[in-house]
Amino acid sequence: MKKLTVKSCIQADDSLGEESLQLHEKHHGVLEVASKVRLDNTRDLSIAYTPGVAEPCKRIAENNDDVYKYTLKENTVAIITDGSAILGLGNIGASAGLPVMEGKAIIFKELAGINAFPICLDTQDTEEIIKTVKNIAPVFGGINLEDISAPRCFEIERRLKKELPIPVIHDDQHGTAIVTIAGLLNALKLTGKKINEIKLVISGAGAAGMAIARKLLHTGVRSENLLVCDRHGIIRKKRTEGMNPEKVKIAEFSNPEEKKGSLTDAVAGSDVFIGVSVPEILTEDMVASMNNDAIIFAMANPIPEIMPLKAFEAGARIVATGRSDCPNQINNCLGFPGIFKGALDTRAIQINLEMELAAANALAAIVEEDGIEEDYIIPNPLDRRVVPAVAKAVADAAIKSGVARKK
Amino acid sequence: MKKLTVKSCIQADDSLGEESLQLHEKHHGVLEVASKVRLDNTRDLSIAYTPGVAEPCKRIAENNDDVYKYTLKENTVAIITDGSAILGLGNIGASAGLPVMEGKAIIFKELAGINAFPICLDTQDTEEIIKTVKNIAPVFGGINLEDISAPRCFEIERRLKKELPIPVIHDDQHGTAIVTIAGLLNALKLTGKKINEIKLVISGAGAAGMAIARKLLHTGVRSENLLVCDRHGIIRKKRTEGMNPEKVKIAEFSNPEEKKGSLTDAVAGSDVFIGVSVPEILTEDMVASMNNDAIIFAMANPIPEIMPLKAFEAGARIVATGRSDCPNQINNCLGFPGIFKGALDTRAIQINLEMELAAANALAAIVEEDGIEEDYIIPNPLDRRVVPAVAKAVADAAIKSGVARKK
Repeated sequence: MKKLTVKSCIQADDSLGEESLQLHEKHHGVLEVASKVRLDNTRDLSIAYTPGVAEPCKRIAENNDDVYKYTLKENTVAIITDGSAILGLGNIGASAGLPVMEGKAIIFKELAGINAFPICLDTQDTEEIIKTVKNIAPVFGGINLEDISAPRCFEIERRLKKELPIPVIHDDQHGTAIVTIAGLLNALKLTGKKINEIKLVISGAGAAGMAIARKLLHTGVRSENLLVCDRHGIIRKKRTEGMNPEKVKIAEFSNPEEKKGSLTDAVAGSDVFIGVSVPEILTEDMVASMNNDAIIFAMANPIPEIMPLKAFEAGARIVATGRSDCPNQINNCLGFPGIFKGALDTRAIQINLEMELAAANALAAIVEEDGIEEDYIIPNPLDRRVVPAVAKAVADAAIKSGVARKK
Repeated sequence: MKKLTVKSCIQADDSLGEESLQLHEKHHGVLEVASKVRLDNTRDLSIAYTPGVAEPCKRIAENNDDVYKYTLKENTVAIITDGSAILGLGNIGASAGLPVMEGKAIIFKELAGINAFPICLDTQDTEEIIKTVKNIAPVFGGINLEDISAPRCFEIERRLKKELPIPVIHDDQHGTAIVTIAGLLNALKLTGKKINEIKLVISGAGAAGMAIARKLLHTGVRSENLLVCDRHGIIRKKRTEGMNPEKVKIAEFSNPEEKKGSLTDAVAGSDVFIGVSVPEILTEDMVASMNNDAIIFAMANPIPEIMPLKAFEAGARIVATGRSDCPNQINNCLGFPGIFKGALDTRAIQINLEMELAAANALAAIVEEDGIEEDYIIPNPLDRRVVPAVAKAVADAAIKSGVARKK
């Protein structure tokens, strides 16, 4: 698979937006619902619909689990948003979020063969979202929460995971974290740095930042080497400004030395910057203040915390972004299709940490096999090896960790 | 198009259920979600998904109506059930209703090119259903309520029609009524009976019975010639047993002479029997007690109020059922694809009585053009003329009645 070069990103293409408008207008969206069977004659109709269809209905009424046998549920995911945190565009509402959800749905189908349907909710009330998702759950084998703003996303995900018998994942949190960790593992191999020694700064204490921070600790990053920053600077226990219950949790598991200061202060002398925040917040001076062989993951979408060329010029060794037109794309596309495939294939009742870390390792291994390079720390999202490898690793982990209902 | 014969129905095929099981198991349901575009390379991904997709999102955020321009909403319907009245199977629940909703969805697509997605709700609470449907409405251009039991279906439909800016129709009520009226108009032409003279009995005071009764009065049936029966017999104002607010309404617009008695009493001396009730409730003796050239619409599903052969033997001239393996199938399939197509094509804000009656007349006209016969009073659901004719009539009526937002 042809790799992108740094140059292709510097010349980032302004025509993408216009082409996207044209594409979405031409087809009225990119997604459709289709029939798997032909309706050529009355008999076809009698079998796919009444009177024949009464039989599968009766079987499911007798044994609810037969819904996995006779319907699309087994292989169908709901992509659910409330439009409150769409890409980097903010709270633009349910309707305006729909093109992203359609795009995500076609990736589910094209890469993993999974049916995914967008559900854009006309409410941003936590309890109402939870109730609505539970109410519509019977049709779906899994729930992908998407672009729901922090801190509501934490409670919504926590409750749905607990109250629904199917896998629920807030992809902005865990999907991003999984792909980030995969890329980081390879970047560390290339630079020869050790995960339990690196100093790491996360910019952004929203959904993604929180999940990345938590999961990094499970991969060997030491809490005293982890600083998480928001717009008020480094998060620490005694800070009072701009705190919320989730940030209190961050302060409990990071920065035990209670370092104070701005993002600039945090970045100085660090090895890794992970941005899940806002465009162009990382300056060249800040990159220059980092340790040698600095690793920059600038994942704000669509405009990163720093553009790759600037980061290189300031001394970074490895740069990754969230953009599909730049090399080292840390994109959730690398995770969710295979993660859900592994979970659905094993009819897992949840997606747990073991499954998530297995997905990260599987992603990293694909690149390692090819040979890690500065502009190749993570596979291309369209690399056809990705989904099978991730799905297999996730399925194995589901079985091993005891959450699979089917082997 | 080959017409079915009465014989093909008498030998009604017991293998349909088994074949339906096999079909639904083989494909894991009959419905899928699909992509309209290819994702062959990184550029495709950048246009269908991030970063390009931010553009259509921004346009919709600026002008909410652009959701019709850039997404699937324009041509997408939700098929919503709570599993409380699935076919004739009763309250078998959300999961067990899913095969019917999938079957209906593929009919939407195959016959009218409309995307329809099943939403089976894990609640049967009226207010919660209303709230849930409103919450998920942004993705859909129309709402098809399906197999929700009376009397809750009336309130749910009434409220959603009022509170949502998109067409909402409870198909078991209005779809059934529209197709029934189409068939009745042709049956009357064949028998030479006049609509304002016929004595008509409806068996079943649920969703369909209520809607048929109401709409018949708009087609010329006189209220004094209309009797509606439930399991307690003829509905009338002074009856106290088994009444509810909807039946009180039925008593107000039918049976002004306050006839008392059983279904048997009602049927004696009538011209038309319309059954939307329970299997095999109409006996041969009851048919024999009807006027000459009796018209029987026995639409209980999957087993009709009387099997066609029995009805003929007892003297009926025209028999229709809901079964797709019998002639004269009064099946909602004849209505909903074209009705929604007409409503979506004109972006109608509702489906009103004018549109419904236009659909009924369009259906009847197709058969009249071919030549009405005893076993051909209604088109075959797979007749390719049906959807365009109904859609055109509905669209014209939407424009004429002032509910169209697009012409």
